[in-house]
Amino acid sequence: MKSVKVGICGLGTVGGGTFNVLKRNAEEITRRAGCAIEVIQVATRARNPHCDTSNTLITDDVFAVVTNPEVDVVVELIGGDTIAKDLVLQAIENGKHVVTANKALIAVHGNEIFAKAREKGVSVSFEAAVAGGIPVIKAIREGLAGNRINWLAGIINGTGNFILSEMREKGRDFADVLAEAQALGYAEADPTFDVEGIDAAHKLTILASIAFGIPLQFDKAYTEGITQLTTADVNYAEALGYRIKHLGVARRTADGIELRVHPTMIPADRLIANVNGVMNAVMVNGDAVGSTLYYGAGAGMEPTASAVVADIVDVARSLSIAPEARVPYLAFQDDALSSHPILPIEQCESAYYLRIQAQDHPGVLAQVASIMSERGINIESIMQLEAEEQEGLVPMILVTHRVQEQLINEAVTELEKLDSISGAVVRIRVEQLA
Amino acid sequence: MKSVKVGICGLGTVGGGTFNVLKRNAEEITRRAGCAIEVIQVATRARNPHCDTSNTLITDDVFAVVTNPEVDVVVELIGGDTIAKDLVLQAIENGKHVVTANKALIAVHGNEIFAKAREKGVSVSFEAAVAGGIPVIKAIREGLAGNRINWLAGIINGTGNFILSEMREKGRDFADVLAEAQALGYAEADPTFDVEGIDAAHKLTILASIAFGIPLQFDKAYTEGITQLTTADVNYAEALGYRIKHLGVARRTADGIELRVHPTMIPADRLIANVNGVMNAVMVNGDAVGSTLYYGAGAGMEPTASAVVADIVDVARSLSIAPEARVPYLAFQDDALSSHPILPIEQCESAYYLRIQAQDHPGVLAQVASIMSERGINIESIMQLEAEEQEGLVPMILVTHRVQEQLINEAVTELEKLDSISGAVVRIRVEQLA
Repeated sequence: MKSVKVGICGLGTVGGGTFNVLKRNAEEITRRAGCAIEVIQVATRARNPHCDTSNTLITDDVFAVVTNPEVDVVVELIGGDTIAKDLVLQAIENGKHVVTANKALIAVHGNEIFAKAREKGVSVSFEAAVAGGIPVIKAIREGLAGNRINWLAGIINGTGNFILSEMREKGRDFADVLAEAQALGYAEADPTFDVEGIDAAHKLTILASIAFGIPLQFDKAYTEGITQLTTADVNYAEALGYRIKHLGVARRTADGIELRVHPTMIPADRLIANVNGVMNAVMVNGDAVGSTLYYGAGAGMEPTASAVVADIVDVARSLSIAPEARVPYLAFQDDALSSHPILPIEQCESAYYLRIQAQDHPGVLAQVASIMSERGINIESIMQLEAEEQEGLVPMILVTHRVQEQLINEAVTELEKLDSISGAVVRIRVEQLA
Repeated sequence: MKSVKVGICGLGTVGGGTFNVLKRNAEEITRRAGCAIEVIQVATRARNPHCDTSNTLITDDVFAVVTNPEVDVVVELIGGDTIAKDLVLQAIENGKHVVTANKALIAVHGNEIFAKAREKGVSVSFEAAVAGGIPVIKAIREGLAGNRINWLAGIINGTGNFILSEMREKGRDFADVLAEAQALGYAEADPTFDVEGIDAAHKLTILASIAFGIPLQFDKAYTEGITQLTTADVNYAEALGYRIKHLGVARRTADGIELRVHPTMIPADRLIANVNGVMNAVMVNGDAVGSTLYYGAGAGMEPTASAVVADIVDVARSLSIAPEARVPYLAFQDDALSSHPILPIEQCESAYYLRIQAQDHPGVLAQVASIMSERGINIESIMQLEAEEQEGLVPMILVTHRVQEQLINEAVTELEKLDSISGAVVRIRVEQLA
């Protein structure tokens, strides 16, 4: 039986998981792939105590893998987008197929990488870059190939979802839960990528490209984190029948594509509103299929390895296939990508939850209502929480109908000028995901 | 640009949907597939008022499509397993690739069909046969290819799920909801296939084969319907923190594969317990990825067409590919299927909910407990509902730990012999799906 020869660059969490899954499930994988998948070289600086590499060629130079003439498939699992980029480009240059779990690399340098790979006729696979073990790239790129995708929305950062789940379930503060997440190893020592939405924006950028057939445009994604969320708003959302999730949302409109990551209120009875803890889920709405949802572990050693290995099996199958018969990198043929623009956030549309600290006298509501109506912003519901009056101020909560963000920006500016309003207006976008 | 030529057999709900989706999304599909997909012939006896077939060659003879030398891909959407079988076998004989949405055909005759297709080097695709528009076949067959699948559990019949959702949400009787489902067109005039679990067993048979790499063995699936479920049990389940769903469950054990469709109590906080109405969802648990879930519309014109078209795109891509480089029919290479047996239901294992009408005197509980303990059946919880006493009888509800079905059968036989018990013992299997 022929075998496909794999070199793994990086033997950390995902690399170690990939090494172990390939070994443990070798028989099962061979029965599927029709050929053995053999790890012939691993590049790592440190031993991984979870991996028995005693029969494997180890190098501490990742570039030794991409120059190894025996290697068919380079699996890039070192992360980051500097060395990883050089590594992947050199692998491609040397005619190797590439599998990577690196979302930053694909989101930021994917267009360049795919151009090079096309030139060299090799595949670059990245299922593990989005939502860990959930085969959502395959689902969108192949499983929904008959659809015009309307929108997608995903919980695609486990750390953020763990924090929000704990805040809601236990009434805990953001900072408190973050500290615990760091202690548990869910969050990095520097949590910026997770809690500021950068990691989610990388993944959303990739999902939007394969859903709508547009080039990767990470620099145009709008990104807002969860660091400013308070338990007060988490609880008000609950009272209104909503949950707050840190969502990546991509939507096709006539004017362009919305591409945005931010805290989002969604109806509590939606399936995705009930995805808790570190789990991930992505909803995809297509014109034929309607709404679908894909759920599973978005990170972790073996869940991510599951996606890496699936990609390796796909590559193993396609080694003998003409490049033009393969599924295109971004789901759409490389010469058929669309120039439909990414919309600036001001032109994106959603409903809004606004929370105002207002003086408790009768005229305020009229002032607020008039600021909204002057801009054509329809109010769906309004709540004044008299019972929570403090120092003459009561929380006033508005939920609007769908409206363009720039109108809300104007309204918020006007609201904050009112003498009867204290402090900043809190604003959370609302999506029905119907 | 080259084009792939499709002949559609059957222009009913799914056939009409497929015709329309291919037409409406032609540009989007071509951008993905890299070639045009052209419907050059449709076989139908009646016009479909939703389809504009004015520029399409129409025949009333389905066999005219499989003998048409221009046709590359035959799309079988006539249903049933008599004419459809002849049609598919002839199409294969004539060297056509086949796409079908026909679960009965694949579950019952799949082994024969795939053997013939292998001989002729053509593909047979059937994503639409299970869970409508949800790309769950692709997810298991390719997306989870690195895993040893442990188990899967699915809500794979929309009619049954609609009925159970209504019974729970509105306290309605089975017969009452069934009549409404028939009026709404969710249920057939003869609902046997849906409510007796036969349709679900067809789908489960297919899912189990691609998950575990075993031949299709529909005749060995255990099938139990929902016709005997009462609102009383639906409510008791709720009180215990469970929901009743009509699940197809397939599980790998050391002794064999469990393959069973039956009403199942699952914890109310599981995501799949919150899949309501006509929607479908499949949970798949793999050794690397853990639990994943796939959700969407399990039936309907365009959702099912979405899956059919995805298969057509896959076939279009693989036309030039050597048969051995394609994904195998049942996920595993044809010569690598396993002979791991399907277990008879008596050897399957689950927890059980038992409801007994017992006389309201102190000795009964001891009698019941002793029958269970003699067989080593551990009781997790027991409830006597004194408040519901009627004519001296009170409902007694037991939930057991996991145990082999044959032990429960024995216990139930013994329980029903007791003078202090009235009528039959109600039994519902319980799965944690953890």
